Amino acid sequence: MEILITNDDGIYAEGIGALATAMKKVGNVTVVAPDTQRSAVGHAITITDPLRVTTAKRNGQFFGYAASGTPADCVKLGIKALMKKRPDLVVSGVNLGGNQAYNILYSGTVSGATEGALLGIPSIAVSLDTFKNPDFGPAAAFAARLAGTLKKRKLPAGTLLNVNVPNLPTSRLKGVRVTNQSRTCFNDWFDKRTDPHGNTYYWMTGDYKPKDPDAASDLNALNAGYVSVTPIQFDLTDYKFITELQNWELKL
Amino acid sequence: MEILITNDDGIYAEGIGALATAMKKVGNVTVVAPDTQRSAVGHAITITDPLRVTTAKRNGQFFGYAASGTPADCVKLGIKALMKKRPDLVVSGVNLGGNQAYNILYSGTVSGATEGALLGIPSIAVSLDTFKNPDFGPAAAFAARLAGTLKKRKLPAGTLLNVNVPNLPTSRLKGVRVTNQSRTCFNDWFDKRTDPHGNTYYWMTGDYKPKDPDAASDLNALNAGYVSVTPIQFDLTDYKFITELQNWELKL
Repeated sequence: MEILITNDDGIYAEGIGALATAMKKVGNVTVVAPDTQRSAVGHAITITDPLRVTTAKRNGQFFGYAASGTPADCVKLGIKALMKKRPDLVVSGVNLGGNQAYNILYSGTVSGATEGALLGIPSIAVSLDTFKNPDFGPAAAFAARLAGTLKKRKLPAGTLLNVNVPNLPTSRLKGVRVTNQSRTCFNDWFDKRTDPHGNTYYWMTGDYKPKDPDAASDLNALNAGYVSVTPIQFDLTDYKFITELQNWELKL
Repeated sequence: MEILITNDDGIYAEGIGALATAMKKVGNVTVVAPDTQRSAVGHAITITDPLRVTTAKRNGQFFGYAASGTPADCVKLGIKALMKKRPDLVVSGVNLGGNQAYNILYSGTVSGATEGALLGIPSIAVSLDTFKNPDFGPAAAFAARLAGTLKKRKLPAGTLLNVNVPNLPTSRLKGVRVTNQSRTCFNDWFDKRTDPHGNTYYWMTGDYKPKDPDAASDLNALNAGYVSVTPIQFDLTDYKFITELQNWELKL
């Protein structure tokens, strides 16, 4: 199994190190990841600048390719320019911070896996639901087991798996739930401040740990101590509304 | 009608100027837009840096607020920090370049409108399907008429309209089609080059004008000279696949 690994925290992040170690038990791993932190870039691609690629070492050994782009750029580069064989699987992560609910839309981690799915390759995004004291081991180990499952099971064309893992030792995880993307909005706001020179600036902040009563949602599963696995796809069309919109009889 | 306008080409771009002029006939306009070009940022938000806001003039007069962030940041800032009244409508554009098919995923223009919809406000993204010799007038005029329609008609919660307009005079536009997001992939690749110092770099390029036989798609409509209006939403869950995925019986 040829596995392409990327992330959005950058090639030297702890999470991608744990993921690469775990994935090497499942197949041949190629790492192509951003040369710096690219969190919350959304599904960005780089079109106005050329991309640079260098090799990156960890512990004195070749680890992978560091690119001056986004996670989506890295997956495109890996598949179309750097890997000799087309990968059988793309795995993005392990991200520091959950990518549940509407975070999916902002997530560079998810966009790396989405790019893999767009290119017709089974893909997984993996995120650890914490910003403090992360233990990436359980999430990386779960991703490796899921990769093993994908040797036998087939995802529909265009569908990828968005995995979120609570920051708990495996022994304290409650289990795995197949979930939907939570519809709960994070309550965010701006903290308005004045710099030492008298100029205004704004910090985005918010309550990023809301509750969600929907027992089928990713947010609810994480809050209850379960790993959440949400199948996602990227046709955004609201098909249910098309007939009514046609009845609006829009004119030039 | 209070209207918040943003874009991803930057506050001094021609397209947002045309849009603001057209929208002033429909309601009170507030412009909050990136201080520089932010194309293909996807649905990025700025969390690691504070946001700066300055005022921008055009033709010697106050035009709007320029922010050091992405389109999604601008919409959040407009609604949560800058506007006195909550807007009745968010319009993002007019973008230089179409946002049809999978371009929707990469689009900063669409992400501005998506942020509006996430915050519960009717929202429209408007793009002009060309990179050369743009005439933003017809697209801006259509957006203004659509805004007028939204005074009487209601979008479902969480659904926004993604509008693309061919670069033709209104007299040569064929009409308006309600469409779905095309499933056609752009065929892109990397042009590998060597810089004057002997280092390799990569330019992303591709065939961005593919055909699409699906007569209901945005891509097909644009290729045939129609304005495309696609209702989109942002629950990415693949609900059809959930039952089968549950049958996989994933374990820790």
